[in-house]
This record gives sequence, C-alpha cells and structure tokens, in this order.
Amino acid sequence: MFKFIKEDKKSKARLGKIITAHGEVDTPNFMPVGTAGTVKALTSDEITLAKTQIILSNAYHLLLRPGAEIIKQAGGLHSFMNWHGPILTDSGGFQVFSLAQLRKIKDDGVEFQSHIDGSKHFITPESMIEFQQILGSDIMMVLDECVPYPAQYDYVKRSLKLTTNWAKRSKALAIRDHQQLFGIVQGGMYLDLRKKAVEQLVEIGFDGYALGGLSVGEPRELMYAIVESTIPMLPKEKTHYLMGVGTIVDILESVERGVDIFDCVVPTRNGRNGVAFTTRGKMQIRNARYKNENLPIDKECTCSCCKGYTRSYIHHLFKANEILGLRLLSLHNITFYAKLMQNIRLSITEDRFLEFKREFLGKYNM
Amino acid sequence: MFKFIKEDKKSKARLGKIITAHGEVDTPNFMPVGTAGTVKALTSDEITLAKTQIILSNAYHLLLRPGAEIIKQAGGLHSFMNWHGPILTDSGGFQVFSLAQLRKIKDDGVEFQSHIDGSKHFITPESMIEFQQILGSDIMMVLDECVPYPAQYDYVKRSLKLTTNWAKRSKALAIRDHQQLFGIVQGGMYLDLRKKAVEQLVEIGFDGYALGGLSVGEPRELMYAIVESTIPMLPKEKTHYLMGVGTIVDILESVERGVDIFDCVVPTRNGRNGVAFTTRGKMQIRNARYKNENLPIDKECTCSCCKGYTRSYIHHLFKANEILGLRLLSLHNITFYAKLMQNIRLSITEDRFLEFKREFLGKYNM
Repeated sequence: MFKFIKEDKKSKARLGKIITAHGEVDTPNFMPVGTAGTVKALTSDEITLAKTQIILSNAYHLLLRPGAEIIKQAGGLHSFMNWHGPILTDSGGFQVFSLAQLRKIKDDGVEFQSHIDGSKHFITPESMIEFQQILGSDIMMVLDECVPYPAQYDYVKRSLKLTTNWAKRSKALAIRDHQQLFGIVQGGMYLDLRKKAVEQLVEIGFDGYALGGLSVGEPRELMYAIVESTIPMLPKEKTHYLMGVGTIVDILESVERGVDIFDCVVPTRNGRNGVAFTTRGKMQIRNARYKNENLPIDKECTCSCCKGYTRSYIHHLFKANEILGLRLLSLHNITFYAKLMQNIRLSITEDRFLEFKREFLGKYNM
Repeated sequence: MFKFIKEDKKSKARLGKIITAHGEVDTPNFMPVGTAGTVKALTSDEITLAKTQIILSNAYHLLLRPGAEIIKQAGGLHSFMNWHGPILTDSGGFQVFSLAQLRKIKDDGVEFQSHIDGSKHFITPESMIEFQQILGSDIMMVLDECVPYPAQYDYVKRSLKLTTNWAKRSKALAIRDHQQLFGIVQGGMYLDLRKKAVEQLVEIGFDGYALGGLSVGEPRELMYAIVESTIPMLPKEKTHYLMGVGTIVDILESVERGVDIFDCVVPTRNGRNGVAFTTRGKMQIRNARYKNENLPIDKECTCSCCKGYTRSYIHHLFKANEILGLRLLSLHNITFYAKLMQNIRLSITEDRFLEFKREFLGKYNM
C-alpha cells in the first residue's frame, strides 16, 4: 500500500510511504541491488546500519540459482538471505533486454538459456508470479519486455501489446494480501505508446507503477522527457518507480518529476571498483593523490568506513587487491545513497526540494 | 612482558599472559594473519567481536607496500589499519624462505626483488627493526633465515651463524620500552643446532622466543619432536611462540609441549576457500550436501555468521562467487580459533588439558 503524504510546493517531488509486510519505506527512496540474494559484499546488518529501507533482488537470477526449491525450504527469500526488511523482486524483464543473446520471446513467455550452465528455462508471466510468491517478496513485478534503445515504432508497439497482455495475465493470478504487484510501463521513447501503456495498466489496476525501458542507452535528456510526460499520467495514490536508475543526478532530476523509488547497481558496483561517493563528487580511491591522505572518505559521513578508516588505508587496500577495500566502499556508498534520500525527503517536507537539489549539485559537481 | 601463570598438572601446557602497550594477550593464544595490514576480508570490529586478542602482520610486505612513509604519516600500523589491540610483526625471515627465487642472502642482510613491481630492496637486521619501530608493533621479530626442509647439516649450521649474528645486531639497537623483541630459534631439524640456537639467543636476551623453520614441509611427527625437545630449553618466564602453525591438531599437540602463541593463515585462507571449521571437523561448504541444509555452520558458535546465516545460503554464496560467503566463513573461522584457544586456557586452568584435547579431537576427527 502506498500512502501519499505531500507534494513539494515548487516541483512535482512527492513525499510518501510504502507500507509492506516487512516494514515501511519512506519515499523518495533508493533500493540497493542484491541480484543473487546478497547486496554484494555486505551483510544484512550492514545494510540496516546504512539505513537502507528496502532492497531489490532479481527473481530471474534466483530462479536459475539457487532455484525455487532451496528458497522454499528456507521459508522464502527474507529468511534465506537474513534480511528482514522490505524486498522488491524484479521479474526478468530486464534480463530479456540485457541477456538478449540468450533468449527467445514468444507469446506465452520467454525461453532463456541459462548464462550459468546453458540449461533451458521457459518463463511465463504466471510462472514468475508463482516464483515471486515462493520468494515472498513484498513487492512483485510483472514480467515484461524491456525494449532496447533505439527501437522502431512498430516493434515497440507490438512489444507493448505483449507486455500488456502479460500484465493482465499476471494480475489474473490470485495475489495474496501481503504481497504487492507493480505493473511496468513500457513504450520505448514514444510518448503515445507510453500513454497507451499507462492507460492499459491502470485499467488492469496495480499497487504501483514502474517506468521500465529507461536508462538503456538513450540520451539523458530524452529519459527526463519521458519521465516528465509519463509520471503525471500515473495515479497519484500509487507508488511511482523508475527502474534501473541511477546516478545521483538522475535521481534528483527524477524526484523533481515525481518519482518515488529507484534501484541501481551504481553505489555497490562503484564501491567494488574503488569509487566512493561524497558530497563533493565521486572519488577514485586508487588515485595517487589519496595515498597519503589521513582523512575519512567523507568527513560528513557517519558510516563505519568513514568513522574508522582513512583514504590512505583504503587506497592501500585497493592497491593490494584486499577485499576489505571494496567492502568499506560498498558500505559507504549505500550509506551515502540512503542519506541522500533522507535529505531529499526532508527538503520536500520543508518545501525546498529545488534549493536542496541546486545546493547539492553545486557542491557535488564542483 | 610475559607473565607465567601456571602449568597444567599432567602436561607441559602453560597458562600465561603477554602484557603489551595495546592490551593483554591470554596464552595459549592464536594470531590471525593480516599480511598486508588487513586480516583478509574482515574489519577490525569483526576481529574484536571474534574475541581475537592479537594479530600478526608482515613487516616485509608492509615495507614494499604501502612503505614506511605512508605508515609513519598515519601514526603507525595500529591507526593505519584501525586495529587498536596488540600486533606482532614478522620481520621478513619467512619471506627469505617463501620468496627464495627473489632474494640473495648476504652477510649484511637480504637483497629482495619485490614480488609486486620487481624493484630491488636491501633489508638488514637493523633496517627491519627500524621499520618495525615505525610500525609501532607491540612485538617485533628479529630478521632471520628461515631454512627450508630438507637442508644439509652444514648449510643449516652456517645459516644459524648468520641468524645468530643478525639477532645480536637487532638486539643492539635501542629498543623502546613499549615494544617487545623476540628472537627466533632456527637450526632446521637438527637438535644440536636448535640447542645451540637457544643458548646463543638466551645469552643475547629477548622478551620472547619463537621457533622458526617449522611447518615448512617436514613430517608432522618430526615437527612435534623438535618442539618437544626445544621448548623446555627456553626460559619459562618468556613467551614461547611457534611460528606459522597452524592446524587445529598441530596447535593442540604444541600447546601440550609448552607453546604459548601461534599464527597461521589456516582459518582465513580456508574461509576464503569455502572451508569452515566446526567442532565436528572441517566442512567444505560447496559440497552439494549443504545445498539444502537450513542450519548454521556450527550450532555451538555465537558468531554473526552462525547467528544469521544458514549452510544452504552460504553454499549458494560460494556457488555464485559472492564475496559475502568468504567474509562469513573468514569471520566464523577466526571466531572458532579464538574460542578453541579460550577453551584450551580454561582446561589448563582446571588441569584437564589432556582430557580436553582428547575429547576435542575425538569429536573433531569423527
């Protein structure tokens, strides 16, 4: 259930709350990604300490490994991975896009060849709902086709027909009360198709609506334009989710346009690659300038990385390929993202989101 | 300073305490290895939670990377790595053995070619003390030649002469009160040379005595024989340290023969390779039998790995090459080792070390 709280006076930024069986999620918010049932390199305790309120995991990956039986026996994904906060599971639509060489789309569903062992799997809208019921995720996503960029109008139109049909079939399954189901708005870069997608999905009726098929290689301004036009068509009293986004700038731009939740591998993947987020921009800790700096990554940060360790030490850890380095930066980065979202919410509460954004980006891009 | 507390009534197992500037170490005890200034994959908080009382780090590795200047500017190794408990630093003697292709031993010291960047380094007994003073380790080791196994008598005899000479030169440097200096007993597998080594070192006078050059490929029984003969020659009121050991069995056998402290990569390296220690023996978590087991690694263990995660989940993490898996097992294994040492100490307190050992190994080897 989504509870709309208020809109910023000077923008479309919204304050809200998603209420799930495993806790509440204040929005706008960001979901770190735990593809394989683990937010890479971090424990669930650390995710909690970072003040992360919700994580995303990938039903498609979990279906291939460890598979339904193992997670069922563990009592669902929450107990399997020892994370007892809210979980949203993606359904595989993104893998239809990202693993395009390994799949064939049919009317019924998608035939995948496993990237792990080459085995064949046929997934359908129904089978993905059933699997997400086994996972017990708090928010399930429908199976869709995430279309690539660029794509011809006719292709996107045909694809949308399939996606809408699959959304209908997903919704038709009996959904238990404690799990929400979100529809996914596709339509490529064509505004009329996006509009059509919204109308059809709203008619079917979902607990939330995601914008899919963005941040797939299109120019940033085009993405903002799609977000700006599509979000206002969505029901105000439902969660607005922008999938696979994103960077700090994209989040701020999209919050301004009315998006409630985001997910992306950016903070964790960057952390593993030696990049730390700070209020003054990104820091590549391998850079020689940090070799001697006895300062925390970000002196304004309260995470245990910044409380205990210096840039000089973390630089050393990355130079020596020590696992602790990427652990510390992963933790720092998800803490940074959670804090950013908290500050965004505070600014909306106080009707100063645009000032916050300007000030934040002013320092960040310095 | 070492405080001898008592000897077990039925064996040579001893209870003691090493008092250092960064805290006390109850003996017998085990030091996890943090070669590059990090106990691999773990934070210093976790090391503390595991009830580890002292860690080992390698002066040789730290000299090459990050180098003296960086650690000096950080205020020493403790603050550099954010571990504020006792640290023992090895001096490079083991690298004389393990990196034999990359070094030339001379009377003055050892010429090394860096395994990292090929650069040339000449280390001397004096330079290694000076560097360990920069590190600020609580226990410094003298530079020695760790001789390989097998080695001819004449070679070991000549080598011992060098090692003794280096020990003298190390001791001759002004040593500050807050840092202890340990000598290293070499002599290969020749008891008369071991005896000679002890006599010469005791004459020089050190805060503790290590047995070096063991666990280098010789049969286990031969190692026990050397330990059994050599340890009683050492001053009772000084720490007895068996370098590079070891396995659970080797630790128990050596405690029985009067050893106080140990170091080894066994718990952490095994953890990274998917092997967990339990009271019922080693467990290779990748084994298919654990795929479905919704049990902790070791139900008697109180570490956060065993409190929060199942065998099934950790099996999955290793199958998916997820970093969290090796983190959890590294943490569990050093917790297991710390607990073992605690139980060993308790058994000595109660004069039942041999019963403890028998019972422990009875279950462990089942």
